[in-house]
Amino acid sequence: MRMEHELLETGPLLIRNVKLDAKPTDILIDDRGMISAVGREVGRVAGKEADRVIEGNGATVLPGLVNTHTHAAMTLFRGYADDMPLSAWLSEKIWPIEALLTGEDVYWGTKLACLEMIRSGTVAFADMYFFMEDAARAVSEMGLCAVLSYGFIDLFSEEKRERECRNTDKFVRFVESLENPRIRPAVGPHAVYTVSPEGLRWCAEYAAQREIGIHIHVSETEKEVRDAVSQWGKRPVAILDECGILTPRTVAAHGCWLDRDECMLLARRSVHVSHNPTSNMKLATGRAMPYHWLKEAGASVTLGTDGCASNNSLDLFTDMKIAALLQKFAWNSPTLLPAEEALAMATSSGARALGTGNGRVAPGEPADLILIDPRAVCNTPVHSMTSNIVYSCTGSVVMTTICHGRVLMHNREVPGEDEILRQAARAARALVEKAREGQ
Amino acid sequence: MRMEHELLETGPLLIRNVKLDAKPTDILIDDRGMISAVGREVGRVAGKEADRVIEGNGATVLPGLVNTHTHAAMTLFRGYADDMPLSAWLSEKIWPIEALLTGEDVYWGTKLACLEMIRSGTVAFADMYFFMEDAARAVSEMGLCAVLSYGFIDLFSEEKRERECRNTDKFVRFVESLENPRIRPAVGPHAVYTVSPEGLRWCAEYAAQREIGIHIHVSETEKEVRDAVSQWGKRPVAILDECGILTPRTVAAHGCWLDRDECMLLARRSVHVSHNPTSNMKLATGRAMPYHWLKEAGASVTLGTDGCASNNSLDLFTDMKIAALLQKFAWNSPTLLPAEEALAMATSSGARALGTGNGRVAPGEPADLILIDPRAVCNTPVHSMTSNIVYSCTGSVVMTTICHGRVLMHNREVPGEDEILRQAARAARALVEKAREGQ
Repeated sequence: MRMEHELLETGPLLIRNVKLDAKPTDILIDDRGMISAVGREVGRVAGKEADRVIEGNGATVLPGLVNTHTHAAMTLFRGYADDMPLSAWLSEKIWPIEALLTGEDVYWGTKLACLEMIRSGTVAFADMYFFMEDAARAVSEMGLCAVLSYGFIDLFSEEKRERECRNTDKFVRFVESLENPRIRPAVGPHAVYTVSPEGLRWCAEYAAQREIGIHIHVSETEKEVRDAVSQWGKRPVAILDECGILTPRTVAAHGCWLDRDECMLLARRSVHVSHNPTSNMKLATGRAMPYHWLKEAGASVTLGTDGCASNNSLDLFTDMKIAALLQKFAWNSPTLLPAEEALAMATSSGARALGTGNGRVAPGEPADLILIDPRAVCNTPVHSMTSNIVYSCTGSVVMTTICHGRVLMHNREVPGEDEILRQAARAARALVEKAREGQ
Repeated sequence: MRMEHELLETGPLLIRNVKLDAKPTDILIDDRGMISAVGREVGRVAGKEADRVIEGNGATVLPGLVNTHTHAAMTLFRGYADDMPLSAWLSEKIWPIEALLTGEDVYWGTKLACLEMIRSGTVAFADMYFFMEDAARAVSEMGLCAVLSYGFIDLFSEEKRERECRNTDKFVRFVESLENPRIRPAVGPHAVYTVSPEGLRWCAEYAAQREIGIHIHVSETEKEVRDAVSQWGKRPVAILDECGILTPRTVAAHGCWLDRDECMLLARRSVHVSHNPTSNMKLATGRAMPYHWLKEAGASVTLGTDGCASNNSLDLFTDMKIAALLQKFAWNSPTLLPAEEALAMATSSGARALGTGNGRVAPGEPADLILIDPRAVCNTPVHSMTSNIVYSCTGSVVMTTICHGRVLMHNREVPGEDEILRQAARAARALVEKAREGQ
């Protein structure tokens, strides 16, 4: 394969000799990046149609993973501040350095995030941050699917709200102008404690009007719930519902402190709840998202890493494992969130949440898929491939990552990797130096 | 470097151009596998002495990791049974298939475990299982350091106790006959609920007499503690203390249900407590080891993966992260078990627990060290190398693994890997088929 051309190529692609649900198969991808055929005979028939061929050599094919909550450019702050109480971590370390960010920093931070996601098998993600036009440029160049939102924070000020509405509208129009089928905008009202009810209502109406998604934090900490009750007389989910935020286009991240009624309401509204187990454990939120109540209610539960300042990795393989472990431990049940459900959170449920198909390797679906090394130690023996993927392997088991038919990584090579590592490291170093000077 | 000879070679080894604590250095290893010199001038002076040279190319050098609690051959059961209640998991799945194990199975399962540990930077481990002579043969061939114990289980029967004493003595003499400086025997009384007080006392006396270690499970589940109190009128740690099991040569695994007084007693007796966060979460033990009480008491706390049926990986990088996350979450403190302490658990504390030096890269220490890829995404940017190692990277960041001066992996190549994968997969498949036939 000609690696230097792959990112640009969009012609038909044939993947030969892979295993899907333990059965040998070939996969044909058309020039629009959709899976057009799956089966053992496909390779023989389609060999001539496809300009590009990938030899799978018995690799297992899986739907690409979907990260439904992150702040991508925070890769620049990986390891900058750990093991601190939440308030000191934010006010002494994260906010001061975020105040120094430029669009160029966000561009390189987002490129580093995309590189990390591609290398660990993630093909689509939901991002919420600042300088989002630069983030969009980075994602566009890297070739992943993304739902991008500008973090809307009005701090209950009318003046700020008007500015945030303008910023949101400007960013949404910018993304739409890109006409990139892999990148879509969403509105990003940050949370009930940072956005006024008026701001939330504006976001809900704007999103409905333009038929775009909503990306928000909900009930991450006990304090958020307590403060909402004392300030507004109701819990965060009720506030969001009154403001029209709870829709089938909404991704609500964290949900650690949801009660049973809230889980049922989120399910009725068809909201997608994004579980962020690693971040919640690292920041000691004190409670794990009640997966059993959400499942019982029939809610859509997906998986997110959160930003690299509170994880500090974007490898969803590790987070599938940590999700399955946390649910068992926190709710005292070794049968809760079995491997199959953890994998579904990170694939089919995530894909539906972000509107990138159904997260299945099947004709008619977008060709968002990854090839898994069949000769890895973590995958030996194979009593259950799903168990190995969730509990044993990490993202390093991914050999090939394909998004909408574009080969983003093959045999663990990603075009342009060295420059991204160099430029992101440089940007991160410069930010820390500036932060030190400012102290 | 000539990979095919490395496992056999023991002559002087020079490692050029690595970073130790962020400073460039060279490292010279003598023909006994000890670090003889560390410094920038070492390479120039020693270039002629060393038969073998490794070019570090700016890699970070770390002490090799130490896994203080595993059942190595259980790699064969990776993914065989997950997401089940403990009692059904043991009685319906694990015990029936363990009853079919042969020495040959344990040999290949242990080889697979060693391969996985080498690939993820572990240089030494404490094992407890059956067919331990075959395990010793596997470890000896793979070149790691290990403290091996036969799992002593008398189920309160005098006849069985006598058999277990003979088995233990036979295995200890076998290991001593190997005269392998990297492999030492220990006694392995399983736990207070599977070994009689007489059996525990015999183990303690035998270990004292021969000056060898003791490897035991303690207070893993609440049931273990409750049953001990109802049967013997005292908690497990008190029973072990009365039987002489608590010594500076003892590794006590799990400790989820330790109370504060027990933590203080374990510290006073200089016992090494092995934290097994992943296994405890997966099996929903309901409580995390009280690290804060152990730390306050000055106890030695180390890190273990437990066996692959309850983890399902031997990658201590992931388990350092999960340990740091679990402690924060379970005890509701984002400052508990910071990255530096998680790394110390897996290096210096572990090495001292198993008697393989002090887990430091310094002259006079055994050359048990690993080289970390400086160009990995998980290690970009480098605000804190320790944070990156604990929170961001997985074992796949290890390029080179050296144990007592032997190069067990270089540039991610381990001699004999393909055969181990093939034979272990075959053994695992055959066991499952036999188990099915027996049903």
